[in-house]
Amino acid sequence: MEQTTINSIPHIEEIHAQHGEFSGVFPQATHTFSERMLTMNKILPSIEEAIKRVGLKDGMTISFHHHFRNGDYITNMVMDVIARMGFKDLTVAASSLNDVHAPLIKHIENGVIKHIETSGMRGELADRISHGLMDFPVVFRSHGGRAAAIESGEITIDVAFLGAPSCDPYGNANGYSREQDNAASCGSLGYAKLDASHARNTIILTDHIVRFPNAPFGIPESNVTYVVKVDAIGDAQGIMSGATRFTKNPKELLIAKQAAEVIEASGYFYDGFSMQMGSGGASLATARFLREKMERNNIKCRFALGGITGQIVDMHEHGLIERILDVQSFDLIAAESLKNNRFHQQIDASYYASYINKGAAVNQLDFVVLSALEIDVNFNVNVLTGSDGVIRGAIGGHPDTADGASLAVVVAPLTRGRIPTVVKKVNTVVTPGAIIDVLVTDQGIAVNPLRPEIRERLIKAGLPIFSIEQLEERAERIVGTPQPIQYHDRIVGVVMYRDNTIIDVIRQVKDPDEF
Amino acid sequence: MEQTTINSIPHIEEIHAQHGEFSGVFPQATHTFSERMLTMNKILPSIEEAIKRVGLKDGMTISFHHHFRNGDYITNMVMDVIARMGFKDLTVAASSLNDVHAPLIKHIENGVIKHIETSGMRGELADRISHGLMDFPVVFRSHGGRAAAIESGEITIDVAFLGAPSCDPYGNANGYSREQDNAASCGSLGYAKLDASHARNTIILTDHIVRFPNAPFGIPESNVTYVVKVDAIGDAQGIMSGATRFTKNPKELLIAKQAAEVIEASGYFYDGFSMQMGSGGASLATARFLREKMERNNIKCRFALGGITGQIVDMHEHGLIERILDVQSFDLIAAESLKNNRFHQQIDASYYASYINKGAAVNQLDFVVLSALEIDVNFNVNVLTGSDGVIRGAIGGHPDTADGASLAVVVAPLTRGRIPTVVKKVNTVVTPGAIIDVLVTDQGIAVNPLRPEIRERLIKAGLPIFSIEQLEERAERIVGTPQPIQYHDRIVGVVMYRDNTIIDVIRQVKDPDEF
Repeated sequence: MEQTTINSIPHIEEIHAQHGEFSGVFPQATHTFSERMLTMNKILPSIEEAIKRVGLKDGMTISFHHHFRNGDYITNMVMDVIARMGFKDLTVAASSLNDVHAPLIKHIENGVIKHIETSGMRGELADRISHGLMDFPVVFRSHGGRAAAIESGEITIDVAFLGAPSCDPYGNANGYSREQDNAASCGSLGYAKLDASHARNTIILTDHIVRFPNAPFGIPESNVTYVVKVDAIGDAQGIMSGATRFTKNPKELLIAKQAAEVIEASGYFYDGFSMQMGSGGASLATARFLREKMERNNIKCRFALGGITGQIVDMHEHGLIERILDVQSFDLIAAESLKNNRFHQQIDASYYASYINKGAAVNQLDFVVLSALEIDVNFNVNVLTGSDGVIRGAIGGHPDTADGASLAVVVAPLTRGRIPTVVKKVNTVVTPGAIIDVLVTDQGIAVNPLRPEIRERLIKAGLPIFSIEQLEERAERIVGTPQPIQYHDRIVGVVMYRDNTIIDVIRQVKDPDEF
Repeated sequence: MEQTTINSIPHIEEIHAQHGEFSGVFPQATHTFSERMLTMNKILPSIEEAIKRVGLKDGMTISFHHHFRNGDYITNMVMDVIARMGFKDLTVAASSLNDVHAPLIKHIENGVIKHIETSGMRGELADRISHGLMDFPVVFRSHGGRAAAIESGEITIDVAFLGAPSCDPYGNANGYSREQDNAASCGSLGYAKLDASHARNTIILTDHIVRFPNAPFGIPESNVTYVVKVDAIGDAQGIMSGATRFTKNPKELLIAKQAAEVIEASGYFYDGFSMQMGSGGASLATARFLREKMERNNIKCRFALGGITGQIVDMHEHGLIERILDVQSFDLIAAESLKNNRFHQQIDASYYASYINKGAAVNQLDFVVLSALEIDVNFNVNVLTGSDGVIRGAIGGHPDTADGASLAVVVAPLTRGRIPTVVKKVNTVVTPGAIIDVLVTDQGIAVNPLRPEIRERLIKAGLPIFSIEQLEERAERIVGTPQPIQYHDRIVGVVMYRDNTIIDVIRQVKDPDEF
């Protein structure tokens, strides 16, 4: 049985009999395992059928994951079906949203979607929301904050619609396939795993039905209600490329090199250290410079956490990183490694960064290298809104890792074109300055006054240390004082800190003609 | 850091600060990861300290696992501390109990333990309970039934005390160690995993603290409150021997050979089949005879489930079994395989056999080979009480697998010494006859009348088929009619079927002088 036939509606009633909807002693099952996989499985012929069977209702909360990044087909596909079926007032609790999700706009306009919770958003959807598309503010949470909200029941997921590159007929799902070489791959299903373990109903959407048991699995059958086979779960190129390439941008390379120097001198670079590299060109490139230092000094990393790239994998395979804890694979090499390397472990969003479980991995980080859209003189970081006040980013694990790590290094160019990165006050506080330690720019380094010992170490290492006010002034000298953004009073987004307190709000931006 | 120092009480207040007991923005963590592992970890200096910190109270429910079998030190060790601390009226929800747990008797007599839930019990404890030791009846559940009761909240575990052969200072625990070759090993922590994921507090007891992160892990740090290092978690020999040896008992070998013939002829032996071999000499030996048939006919097993032995592993390593789903490793070879073979997957008790999750692995079994203390003319099976009515066994996954599998084969000698195995009416119904398909004895085979097609196939294959009444009569002819057991009215045990209905009760036995 290479491929299960899904053209006939399976005998779902019989499945229910096996799932506790009857009590007492049953007549014996007599089908062979092989026959059961064909006729008593969880595969439904359409998304619509799955939605009917789980009993979706107006006002419920549905969830999606973002492991397919900008290649995701699932969210739009499911929302189109839901809209066609006439549902209204749904809450979409996505782990994150991207450019590709612009079609959600029409579902908001038509009242299908009433509320959105997400780590971030970009593109047309973000732009429209920044301009007041929704009646209710979008709630932005970090990956750890979202995990905690799901665990605490603040976010109650009625139906999770989770895309998976492979799934067997009984629901064991994973982020890669061992049976179809042409399967799209996303590696870790870290964010999806948590949704599946807490959702009232989980529907797996896959383009590759594989043989039972699809083990090892990212999502276990015991968490899966139904499986729907779709033609495609996403655009493979958009889901992930072969390898995350190092930036060739000389400014980013300079910043990355400096960041590695900072880490080396910080006191947190020693044999057995732990680290996370955030996304973004400069932070990813920092790994390359650190590697040279590790090899030169015979220093090994005990574990790398978080979003994982091919570079981290290569260091692992060369014995420089002993363990990888992977909540999200950034490229195909990382996905392949998760499939093949025993010490490359798939972890869920709670294990990664929840604030209310019994201990998350971020708490064991020596350092994290993070990016910023803006950072202000109090070291507050904005990764969510642009210089025009419009939403164009995602919180991700930024505050989770900055809080957990002993050393949170922000890497950013002092200015981007005519836009300053270091400012007096960020538009949106995502990560509070109290947990950011060092800022590395192409024009100098600043250390949070809360960490005088770090400052001393960096000065001793001959690094170019300035006060953050000096950097801010330099940025202002280069690009001038930006015009303050004009806002309406209306709140379009609420930014939650990882401990479920509101750390900032995002207001509706005024267009130039409204000034 | 090969071994963490645990002599000083760690800075638990700082841990709490990281675990949600404070809200708002924290001062930065400044310790290195390596220092945190020494001073901000979850290790407590004693079981007593851990009990104090989790706030154990009279009347609460505590849990233990049975992966250490009759080598377990944890249950007695913890209960002694609890008794010394003066707690009363506790419920002990153990996944199973064994001969080694006789010391619980005194804790029952002293009022420390008020109630017990378990899969089974043996030895002096079982004997005393059968004779009326406890005020409340013991509740016996199958492994799947216990998982469901935990998931539904019927069993609410306040504190799980879980022994682990390795654990890092932050609580990632596993059933083997990668860093200490002399570590005791139990392989899968399948039953413990579920306790950890549902308990209000989980305390890991280990004799081997290993480096963070102890990945891959059986129990994640996110489910672990504290860790206590103890001198020894168990007697390595009692926990598991090198390899489960095949029986040399000629009667058992004969039964096993016949059972393999039955399976071959049953219609459930085909390329891609699935199976579970229960514990017990004859059922384990059946694997050997099946293997010959598989090799001869070039038939492969898609997956083997349940308690796993070295024989199953050897078949896996020779390509005869493609996947192993392991809730409990029966021997050291199985434990080593779990550590080293990628397609040997650790699963939890819910995934294995729960009745109320979204789909358990037992539902995909072609056949299971099970043992019996007694089986009656209605095919009801007793694996819990002896011919004297005294408790001396465990339900285990018996009813779960019999219900899930298409073919449930019971293997048992017709008589054991002067005791008949096939009887008119079992003392205790554990698995209802409606889900048992075939009985294989050394003196013939009987097929449940509910499965006439199986009977036909076996007759066609030339197997010696009798009615179960004929087998019962034959047993009676050999050993005579047993005296009926004399019981008091008082109920000492309640047997739950896997769907949480009461299937039978166990009454207090009368001693001969009470007749």
